[in-house]
Amino acid sequence: MESDTSPLLARRMRDIKPSFIREILAAAGGNTISFAGGLPHPESFPAHEIRESADRAIERDGRSILQYTVTEWYRPLREWIAHRYGLLTGVNMSADDIIITNGSQQAFDLIGKAFVDPGDTILLESPTYLGALQAFEFFEPRYEELDLGQDGPNTEHLRTSLERHRPKFFYAIPAFQNPSGGSYSAKCRTEVARALSDHSQTILVEDDPYGELRFDGTRHRAIAADYEHSILLGSFSKIAAPGLRLGWIYAPRALREPLVIAKQAADLHSGHLTQAILHRFVTEHDFDAHIDAIIARYRTHRDAMVAALRETLPEARFSVPEGGMFLWVQLPGCDTHALFKFATMCGVTFVPWAAFSPHGGCADCMRLNYSNCDPETIRRGVALLAEAYEQYQKSPR
Amino acid sequence: MESDTSPLLARRMRDIKPSFIREILAAAGGNTISFAGGLPHPESFPAHEIRESADRAIERDGRSILQYTVTEWYRPLREWIAHRYGLLTGVNMSADDIIITNGSQQAFDLIGKAFVDPGDTILLESPTYLGALQAFEFFEPRYEELDLGQDGPNTEHLRTSLERHRPKFFYAIPAFQNPSGGSYSAKCRTEVARALSDHSQTILVEDDPYGELRFDGTRHRAIAADYEHSILLGSFSKIAAPGLRLGWIYAPRALREPLVIAKQAADLHSGHLTQAILHRFVTEHDFDAHIDAIIARYRTHRDAMVAALRETLPEARFSVPEGGMFLWVQLPGCDTHALFKFATMCGVTFVPWAAFSPHGGCADCMRLNYSNCDPETIRRGVALLAEAYEQYQKSPR
Repeated sequence: MESDTSPLLARRMRDIKPSFIREILAAAGGNTISFAGGLPHPESFPAHEIRESADRAIERDGRSILQYTVTEWYRPLREWIAHRYGLLTGVNMSADDIIITNGSQQAFDLIGKAFVDPGDTILLESPTYLGALQAFEFFEPRYEELDLGQDGPNTEHLRTSLERHRPKFFYAIPAFQNPSGGSYSAKCRTEVARALSDHSQTILVEDDPYGELRFDGTRHRAIAADYEHSILLGSFSKIAAPGLRLGWIYAPRALREPLVIAKQAADLHSGHLTQAILHRFVTEHDFDAHIDAIIARYRTHRDAMVAALRETLPEARFSVPEGGMFLWVQLPGCDTHALFKFATMCGVTFVPWAAFSPHGGCADCMRLNYSNCDPETIRRGVALLAEAYEQYQKSPR
Repeated sequence: MESDTSPLLARRMRDIKPSFIREILAAAGGNTISFAGGLPHPESFPAHEIRESADRAIERDGRSILQYTVTEWYRPLREWIAHRYGLLTGVNMSADDIIITNGSQQAFDLIGKAFVDPGDTILLESPTYLGALQAFEFFEPRYEELDLGQDGPNTEHLRTSLERHRPKFFYAIPAFQNPSGGSYSAKCRTEVARALSDHSQTILVEDDPYGELRFDGTRHRAIAADYEHSILLGSFSKIAAPGLRLGWIYAPRALREPLVIAKQAADLHSGHLTQAILHRFVTEHDFDAHIDAIIARYRTHRDAMVAALRETLPEARFSVPEGGMFLWVQLPGCDTHALFKFATMCGVTFVPWAAFSPHGGCADCMRLNYSNCDPETIRRGVALLAEAYEQYQKSPR
């Protein structure tokens, strides 16, 4: 069998490789210090509250929440989402506009399925989230990339790209971007919405998994609030627990219906029990206090990483992110893919640039995650990284 | 927006309609007696045991089972599955061969993604499971159908079809088929395995969601045990609870790897928490006794439906299924799609033939589910069905 599998494969599979995420998650065990994954800190999980919520949910609604349900449910959770994130993002949404998904990852898959034909163009930020690339890849798109500046993309470039390539959608992470940690300014958001409105054949897919995790500054209105052909994605992986596998899609009706049909074919609906548990957790406990505790924790982590880099790896250039889970570090002239091998030998991992672009490119950047390790481990990891960089520089090239 | 959505849609979406399943699940509430869905009886859910399992799982392993994990996990559950279903099916499997999915529905999607190009042929039983059709549809296949006889398909027809159409895979539900309720005989299984082995370019996708629910007779070896290019699907929806959204795929390595890559892109992994809860339920409680109780319950339901049909709808022709959840009923000459409308008005629903074939066909059959209603409701529902049939016969055509 081993020898003759490839003729059985669909064409779309032939160039797809197991993603870096998977290897990252697999490598996350052991003694290696990992700045690679996007894992929350386990102490941030409200295990006690989820235990209590599970107990009450099954006690009170066991028979119903263990049954099949319709694709978009759990209704009370969707109501809660529409209320909270309507206020936070400025998007005018009701429970009907929400589809519960298995994390944001499933949203990428459903969006690809519903909207992307082979050869269609997807417009990406450069760099962009590797998990989204992994999902989109199956639909055999063309990619166009838009460089991210300090305050977001250059909107003239965006306009040119919309006009020239007529992308099916623009995939953007405007707050605490993964991997760059950067955020669009209010002005940039307004200009992006205006550019999209002027070329309304392109859907905006606004991904906002980190929006709640703001350490400094003030929250901006979502771009989706000002452009009608928008899909907004949220996730409970960073603010409750990824093991629940729950996220959500906001989409206006005309964009939502094909997503619901795709979701139904993909797995009928997301876990009914976990949706009910999550709903009890967010409504019967102090969710804002829980978020505040995560923010306080990650701010400390970020500060520890920033301080350690400044102290032990002064060649590192980076902007200090105002929130989220990542630092995007440039080591000028360094081949971060080569550095990765030295780092692994020294006992620390990260994700090199190449993973964040379908086309490769500027190879002297890398993503460092600070949410998963505590500050002491972060300091040790950065010291190991500095050691790896020293070895890399001494190595013959 | 409403008016100009269709140019945004992927081509694969243009002919896809929301499935009957969805309408069935939506219609399952209210006062209508539903023989339509494939819902388990809510009293069959081990709510108390799942509550206990959730409590212990979160207490003992909260931090780890709330975290991300790798695509195929939860490892202890996969070990349990490989052990139990290795013995029950005769397939030589280890934990490594198992991928946990969001019910069997996700398996259909992953299989389509990994193996089906537009225009590829999928060989189906006729009739076949509508949820599988709904998932396969997205990959734009051609379909070939194979009539099911009393003991399974005619294996000469199977051979002809394999030779002539070289299908990517043969999708079969050899035990208590959905919708027909029929099962392949031992002899037919052997012949099917042999036919496939002689034309080994076709994968067997053997779907076995009801195999545990045998009321009479003895269990057969899976066909997958005797054909190496086989994928075997199992589900916990009928024997634990569908609200957990958990099923599994057995696949040998060469077929498994593309499925893992597809699963990873689709949603990274299935719910970590629910996998851990399910594992505690199946290992710390008497799972066999639980299955026996479901079997005893559904046998009573089946017998009630058989008796009611014989008494109040003597025109109905059917074979008595030895297990599973469905009766396949023929009302000779009746247009069951037209009957469906009368039935809905009388307060009872079922699924007419047309939903179970991509091409339509023999319209005088329908599927009646007996798992979801208790015997008293079954008797009332059959009486309503008889009433609807009488009205249908009197109606002008």
